[in-house]
Amino acid sequence: MNKEYMILEEKLAAKGIDAGWVKDSIKNLSVETPSWGYGDAGTRFKVFKQIGMPRNLYEKLDDAAIVNKFTGICPSVAVHIPWDKVDDYEDAGKYARDKGIRIGAVNPNLFQADEYMLGSVCNADPAVRKMATDHMLECVDIARKFKSKEISLWFADGTNYPGQGSFRNRKNWMIESLLKLDKFMDDDMRMFIEYKAFEPAFYHTDINDWGMSLLLANRVGKKGTVLVDLGHHAQEVNIEQIVANLIDEGKMGGFHFNNKKYADDDLIVGSIKPYELFLIFNEIIDATLDEKTSACAKAISYMIDQCHSIEPKVPAMIRSVLNVQTAHAKALLVDRKKLEEARMANDVLGAEDCVREAFECDVRPLLAQVREEMGIDTNPMKAYMASGHEEDKKKRGYGQGWS
Amino acid sequence: MNKEYMILEEKLAAKGIDAGWVKDSIKNLSVETPSWGYGDAGTRFKVFKQIGMPRNLYEKLDDAAIVNKFTGICPSVAVHIPWDKVDDYEDAGKYARDKGIRIGAVNPNLFQADEYMLGSVCNADPAVRKMATDHMLECVDIARKFKSKEISLWFADGTNYPGQGSFRNRKNWMIESLLKLDKFMDDDMRMFIEYKAFEPAFYHTDINDWGMSLLLANRVGKKGTVLVDLGHHAQEVNIEQIVANLIDEGKMGGFHFNNKKYADDDLIVGSIKPYELFLIFNEIIDATLDEKTSACAKAISYMIDQCHSIEPKVPAMIRSVLNVQTAHAKALLVDRKKLEEARMANDVLGAEDCVREAFECDVRPLLAQVREEMGIDTNPMKAYMASGHEEDKKKRGYGQGWS
Amino acid sequence: MNKEYMILEEKLAAKGIDAGWVKDSIKNLSVETPSWGYGDAGTRFKVFKQIGMPRNLYEKLDDAAIVNKFTGICPSVAVHIPWDKVDDYEDAGKYARDKGIRIGAVNPNLFQADEYMLGSVCNADPAVRKMATDHMLECVDIARKFKSKEISLWFADGTNYPGQGSFRNRKNWMIESLLKLDKFMDDDMRMFIEYKAFEPAFYHTDINDWGMSLLLANRVGKKGTVLVDLGHHAQEVNIEQIVANLIDEGKMGGFHFNNKKYADDDLIVGSIKPYELFLIFNEIIDATLDEKTSACAKAISYMIDQCHSIEPKVPAMIRSVLNVQTAHAKALLVDRKKLEEARMANDVLGAEDCVREAFECDVRPLLAQVREEMGIDTNPMKAYMASGHEEDKKKRGYGQGWS
Amino acid sequence: MNKEYMILEEKLAAKGIDAGWVKDSIKNLSVETPSWGYGDAGTRFKVFKQIGMPRNLYEKLDDAAIVNKFTGICPSVAVHIPWDKVDDYEDAGKYARDKGIRIGAVNPNLFQADEYMLGSVCNADPAVRKMATDHMLECVDIARKFKSKEISLWFADGTNYPGQGSFRNRKNWMIESLLKLDKFMDDDMRMFIEYKAFEPAFYHTDINDWGMSLLLANRVGKKGTVLVDLGHHAQEVNIEQIVANLIDEGKMGGFHFNNKKYADDDLIVGSIKPYELFLIFNEIIDATLDEKTSACAKAISYMIDQCHSIEPKVPAMIRSVLNVQTAHAKALLVDRKKLEEARMANDVLGAEDCVREAFECDVRPLLAQVREEMGIDTNPMKAYMASGHEEDKKKRGYGQGWS
Repeated sequence: MNKEYMILEEKLAAKGIDAGWVKDSIKNLSVETPSWGYGDAGTRFKVFKQIGMPRNLYEKLDDAAIVNKFTGICPSVAVHIPWDKVDDYEDAGKYARDKGIRIGAVNPNLFQADEYMLGSVCNADPAVRKMATDHMLECVDIARKFKSKEISLWFADGTNYPGQGSFRNRKNWMIESLLKLDKFMDDDMRMFIEYKAFEPAFYHTDINDWGMSLLLANRVGKKGTVLVDLGHHAQEVNIEQIVANLIDEGKMGGFHFNNKKYADDDLIVGSIKPYELFLIFNEIIDATLDEKTSACAKAISYMIDQCHSIEPKVPAMIRSVLNVQTAHAKALLVDRKKLEEARMANDVLGAEDCVREAFECDVRPLLAQVREEMGIDTNPMKAYMASGHEEDKKKRGYGQGWS
Repeated sequence: MNKEYMILEEKLAAKGIDAGWVKDSIKNLSVETPSWGYGDAGTRFKVFKQIGMPRNLYEKLDDAAIVNKFTGICPSVAVHIPWDKVDDYEDAGKYARDKGIRIGAVNPNLFQADEYMLGSVCNADPAVRKMATDHMLECVDIARKFKSKEISLWFADGTNYPGQGSFRNRKNWMIESLLKLDKFMDDDMRMFIEYKAFEPAFYHTDINDWGMSLLLANRVGKKGTVLVDLGHHAQEVNIEQIVANLIDEGKMGGFHFNNKKYADDDLIVGSIKPYELFLIFNEIIDATLDEKTSACAKAISYMIDQCHSIEPKVPAMIRSVLNVQTAHAKALLVDRKKLEEARMANDVLGAEDCVREAFECDVRPLLAQVREEMGIDTNPMKAYMASGHEEDKKKRGYGQGWS
Repeated sequence: MNKEYMILEEKLAAKGIDAGWVKDSIKNLSVETPSWGYGDAGTRFKVFKQIGMPRNLYEKLDDAAIVNKFTGICPSVAVHIPWDKVDDYEDAGKYARDKGIRIGAVNPNLFQADEYMLGSVCNADPAVRKMATDHMLECVDIARKFKSKEISLWFADGTNYPGQGSFRNRKNWMIESLLKLDKFMDDDMRMFIEYKAFEPAFYHTDINDWGMSLLLANRVGKKGTVLVDLGHHAQEVNIEQIVANLIDEGKMGGFHFNNKKYADDDLIVGSIKPYELFLIFNEIIDATLDEKTSACAKAISYMIDQCHSIEPKVPAMIRSVLNVQTAHAKALLVDRKKLEEARMANDVLGAEDCVREAFECDVRPLLAQVREEMGIDTNPMKAYMASGHEEDKKKRGYGQGWS
Repeated sequence: MNKEYMILEEKLAAKGIDAGWVKDSIKNLSVETPSWGYGDAGTRFKVFKQIGMPRNLYEKLDDAAIVNKFTGICPSVAVHIPWDKVDDYEDAGKYARDKGIRIGAVNPNLFQADEYMLGSVCNADPAVRKMATDHMLECVDIARKFKSKEISLWFADGTNYPGQGSFRNRKNWMIESLLKLDKFMDDDMRMFIEYKAFEPAFYHTDINDWGMSLLLANRVGKKGTVLVDLGHHAQEVNIEQIVANLIDEGKMGGFHFNNKKYADDDLIVGSIKPYELFLIFNEIIDATLDEKTSACAKAISYMIDQCHSIEPKVPAMIRSVLNVQTAHAKALLVDRKKLEEARMANDVLGAEDCVREAFECDVRPLLAQVREEMGIDTNPMKAYMASGHEEDKKKRGYGQGWS
């Protein structure tokens, strides 16, 4: 047990926080990595090709299994159809399980077929709407083969010019499709409905914010939940408040983690606004401790969704996972009893102090301790870099990107 | 009949638009002016005192009646309690009616009492929550005396620092209060629930966007509707989409008109983003023509809510009303048949053209014609400036501002 | 002469504005179109391929010549190297001139070679910096062959993460390269230095705003000027003020016209914020009438730079040119004498009225008159759509995009 | 010496960082507090009055001296004229020195006199421009009496409506005034020129960003420098880049520290975006180690400028100072040798790691050690709260705010 961890344990005891609970919570956090995060990605100006990219789903699973090996908390992988099309989905699901991981959320692609230029389920053309809806149903079938229970929906639907489309018609077409999907899904499946302020549509986006996602999730009913992508908000938005509210409504389904300074920059999560990430986890931990909201908070799916343009992909993924783990661990250290007292006493600076104070803690010794207990290397990045995988990958040559 | 109007009438006929319907629609638009818009206002740095400000509600009603006289479309006045407290509300209501106007929305003030420093209905202190709720009920009583049917709610509630308050507790306290208010209101009354991205709270605002307002309005039920203030959004927000969506949900209650370039700047409506104002009216006109949404669209309350720091107040109000009228009139000129065809054919530029083309029209000749038919001066601003009221007002000396 | 134009002429006379000067000014406006605006473009999610795209520079010049034919004001075409590489630049220049147009600004591409993944002239690797600088010199040679006098520089250089690069080193490497370029350029050439708030770099961009462009243009000296792309600012920026200031400094070089609601959306100019475009021209017209600033204002290059993802390309270009022409024409109608008087009298609403009033004018009859006098069709879009070129183009099959 | 500090010292040694240099740097940091930060402040909606506010400059100096006593690093106080007008400036200066502090920057008030409603040095009325310029000269005289060497200029000048003012005239009037001020100032005085994106002006602000401040500072010459207020930028702005650039230009003069989530929120510095504050100090430390930029970087004035609406004032100030100290201390821990190597090798993740890694350190043990060596309490906030000053202050009753 490292010295620094021992000091921390003493401090936790003084706050009345159980170190065992903290360590268990850290061990129980699962972060899903995306298959597309292991391949080439870029901006509209250029996708820079890197050597060693996976050439198909199997090689993406190889990379994901390695990230899970070194971090210990990434047992599932999100897939994107058709990017991850294979001949035999059951075989791929088994391949994953043999590597100690599994397929997580299945993401239909509703923005790259030529037919979708002016929208998918919100297209004025009913043939395109049918094509898009059918593709979603196909993905449910694929999910069944993968033994996955989650369908993750991002619609790029929107318009570029005033007048181009009817907001109200488009919304009602969206609802129609979602209800068909809902009916087709199994009872124990979950639907994540993602929102985005803008891009690729630049005048309006049909599902533009959490309010619209929640409205649709409520229309869908039990299976419908909201997916929060950290990069999909206007600049001036308090994301942790949205998260708390969605949990309170029982409709917070999952996250797409990444980070932004400007638009949907898709940078490594926690690299630009680490305090925001911590404050989001602070709300979640708080809700897990409240009987009314605990079930929803505990069922949240944590998924990474980034676009690594200039980064080496596997190290970027490990860095992302570590940043999530760091923010989560810090949030566990908040003295919630003291916080509640300060809040009820309207003690502004006292309450603020409880939260900021936890963020100021250095949790690296704590995480090292947890990793030791989990039987993995205490420094995942260093261990990975020494593993030889970066060299091994190069044998693949060039691989697959967003297509 | 002016030459230019006659040319316009020909053009409308060519588009298949009935000029009579256009003129009737213009005549039927009502814009409510706010009592506080006639007095001193300012920024946190300074309220510059102007001579001639009204000293009480009666003098504000005098100014409002004059704005109605010259514009012909401002028959009601929103009031703010306690700024507009008088000894006899029935008498003040009668005074207004004698001047050809009436009291419109009643606005409780939930942000200036010392007790509200850390929130009103979301305050951690139950005594403050009760005080705030009681004030809302008091305002319902006042509305009854005024014969007003509308309670307009803006809550400044929010926090300035991470950790300061519990998002979830505060939301549930808000709901509790709104339900009490709802129960106390008469069945034919309407409740407007306003949202605001930020200010005066700078970390989180309890009712932060349309999604939260709609959630609350749904919780309230039949009387609950959403109020859209044009200055209360993050920069990157499509307001006309929100309006269309709220109408589709049957929950669009009213507007607070003003304009912004940055934050909640409260400038003269239409002075910074005239196209946006037009596009909002474009959605409303569209919805009035659709059986499903017509009732909600036609019941919308159009209210001005501005903060005239450096402007002469009555001229600023007339300018605001004229800008609203201009945007509304232009929206009536959209060739909706052609627009619908272009949309259904996925003709992007064709659809855009229908909307922009109407905006490019100069509606001043049309408005002049309408005013002539209404029996008012064709140039309201010029007529007002020549009326001598600006001089007359000065006899009042200094008057009342935001307090 | 159409009736509506005659009414306008009377109104201008009443304002003391010479209709001949207005018409001449409209005729003298030149708008440069970009070769890449005629081909496929898109977002990072997808470039939708359209049939009929030009397959090389010659076919782009064909399309540009047609846009010039129908609008009458697009005599030059910006090119991008290497997208527009041809075997014989002199021949291509002659081809353009034979079609009544010419090559305008030459744009080096400093962001798509693999070497530029982490920057071009700001790359930590001196070999890459040299490669980038050499490419700029090559473009000067190409410009000479085209008989073009303008080098237009956009650097995508920037970083994605805190710490990734040294701001100060990178800036000084930038200056080094610009000085080499300046030395190589002919004395009668101009260098446009473009800035951009973000994208494709998402943490910092080396030339991030007008202040940095101006700093560099001053370092370069006489040939250095600033290029303002309307989509390259943070949301809360007053672009017309920047333009006025750059003219005052004698350093306003040119525009990249397009429009945005969110980020660098690259939509049709004037389609989202028409009032902003008008206000920019308002500053320019104002400066042309002031002896101190006239020379700089008159030398401004107006270039379109858009990314037409979902639009038919030639119609989108014509629409853009018409929107520019409309905004410019309206700005000519401002009663500047009355405006100056109102400003000097601190008459806020009076001054505002002079500007807004001109924007409210419908200039379509004026533009029709000007076109008649220029001998082109009064409705360029309609004439183009009837010309058969959209059909003819299809024979090309699929063509070239951003690569 | 605390255990945790000893562990840190070992780690520093391993990085090759001299713990003595770190501690000395921390001790040498000076943070100036503003006299107006000790009194009532608020938003445009309300200034909540708190008991115990200072009633005049002397009492503000009392509070400032106490903040200096407990933090050890706040030896100077910025003043605002006329808010801090006293009969005898020399006496007040002596009073401060007797308490171990001194008067720092003198701030003229150019926005609250009635004459300034439409601008001060940019007002169209030459009499107002003269009045404003004279007030600045008066402040130089006052500075002399205080033995202060710094004049800090914030101009609220701007307009609310398109057309209201002439950008170019106003800019040139600004330059005229600054040159008069420059001439009047002593050779060893410094002028800070502050910029602000918006507020209280909402259409344009004459000094709107760093580019304009730098342009003016260069026009002024040697004495002119730029002042960076952290809350005065558009959302999408990289402040640390601006700081690095201004230092490179030799024109970075000082900071107004505070924090924002939305507009100019004036919250406690470091409370919303702690990573940004750290990254700013990272640039400064970097520049102090570079011979070319060291002099400018070392001469930077660190001033707090906040608007404590709901906070107890002295604790809010202590919290602000501690947050500045924390960010600065973390920036000292960056392994700059390793960072430079990673940057030169274009190792994106390696370079990022060097910076983030320092931020993840918990510097509280280090600061405790430094405070012990400085002879002050290791926990300034706790010590202050136990000191009885909060109770003592109440004897003052109500005091002074922004007026």
